[in-house]
Amino acid sequence: MDQAFIFDVFGTCVDWRNSVARKVATAVRGVDPFAFADAWRGEYQPAMERIRAGGRGYVPLDKLHLENLATVLARFGATCDDLRDLNRVWEQLDPWPDVPSGLTALRHKALIAPCSNGSVGLMARLARHGDLPWDAIVGADIAQDYKPKLSVYLRSVEVLNLPPDRVTMVAAHNDDLVAARAAGLRTAFVARPTEHGASQTCDLEPISDWDIIASDFNDLVTRA
Amino acid sequence: MDQAFIFDVFGTCVDWRNSVARKVATAVRGVDPFAFADAWRGEYQPAMERIRAGGRGYVPLDKLHLENLATVLARFGATCDDLRDLNRVWEQLDPWPDVPSGLTALRHKALIAPCSNGSVGLMARLARHGDLPWDAIVGADIAQDYKPKLSVYLRSVEVLNLPPDRVTMVAAHNDDLVAARAAGLRTAFVARPTEHGASQTCDLEPISDWDIIASDFNDLVTRA
Repeated sequence: MDQAFIFDVFGTCVDWRNSVARKVATAVRGVDPFAFADAWRGEYQPAMERIRAGGRGYVPLDKLHLENLATVLARFGATCDDLRDLNRVWEQLDPWPDVPSGLTALRHKALIAPCSNGSVGLMARLARHGDLPWDAIVGADIAQDYKPKLSVYLRSVEVLNLPPDRVTMVAAHNDDLVAARAAGLRTAFVARPTEHGASQTCDLEPISDWDIIASDFNDLVTRA
Repeated sequence: MDQAFIFDVFGTCVDWRNSVARKVATAVRGVDPFAFADAWRGEYQPAMERIRAGGRGYVPLDKLHLENLATVLARFGATCDDLRDLNRVWEQLDPWPDVPSGLTALRHKALIAPCSNGSVGLMARLARHGDLPWDAIVGADIAQDYKPKLSVYLRSVEVLNLPPDRVTMVAAHNDDLVAARAAGLRTAFVARPTEHGASQTCDLEPISDWDIIASDFNDLVTRA
């Protein structure tokens, strides 16, 4: 196996918004579950940015998610009985329907691995939940920093023992691919136009001439 | 999944000696393939020891294997046409017969991952070769150091997001378990009495009261 495809996960492989909102609806009373899910996810980039900028040492995303949950509960004036149980929803996100079949087919052509900001443990449990047949788990936890820092892509390629130009980064987010390309990787864009709900405005289209532009993971396999 | 089993690989999961000898027999003319395999493997600990002791920065095992191959070829006064191809034999080692079925059954009880001195890429390719259904790959490449340094076990447990006492290290080598126990992990011994051939003298028996002592991986599942 002299090539690999590595994947953004939240939004690209799994539908975090509907999955989180569904659990919030049962665990947090008196809030709009979609507004709560969006607010929780809204704390994601600022929490990582402090680490990327060097203002805080690396801590895994599981811990950031838990801290952010407490922040958002306070903002909504809401409570929940078991924060740690609710936080585990990030290990229980449903894949988009095309993902298990697409990954299973792609495995015949290449090594496949998540290159996510989620931890190894989070990714392993999410793979169990969604039947994602990864060969390995690379990404933030391996690099001890967060995407889109170039070190995350470079370290991921290095541990797979492949040159960057034999590795394709797959994402539904153009900024992830901008960084992957800067690190020397090949790039594949798969739009997820309802990641943020029906009125999504970002990442509806590729913003560059990515090496592959696919409509979903099954289409990605035919173009790989 | 609130527990994990992590595994030594060379010797514990896979029969490196017969697999390497078989490929040496076709790739290197005029040598005893078992003597050559033993000599190649004999360079393994000294090469890692220099890194463990701080005399050399971390380099992945793939590179050490390649350097050691050149050393051993010179010692035997032998040549081979393609060193890199021969070096890939470490990605093509056959599992012991009980390993695929044992791991597949154990997955119903726990997360499973190799905790080897092999790199992530080597472990991913070896898993493809032998149908080893790992949830993740931990070990040396994650810790940037080599077992039995305690940091390798501690870092492996950390990225799985589990406390050490929820993780069991499985090995056919007592010294691996001594270190794992010192790091706070649970321990399981599975003897591989022919790892080094019919006249093996080491690791025929457990030297301590390991938490589990099993005859093979299927027996391990019943005791897990």
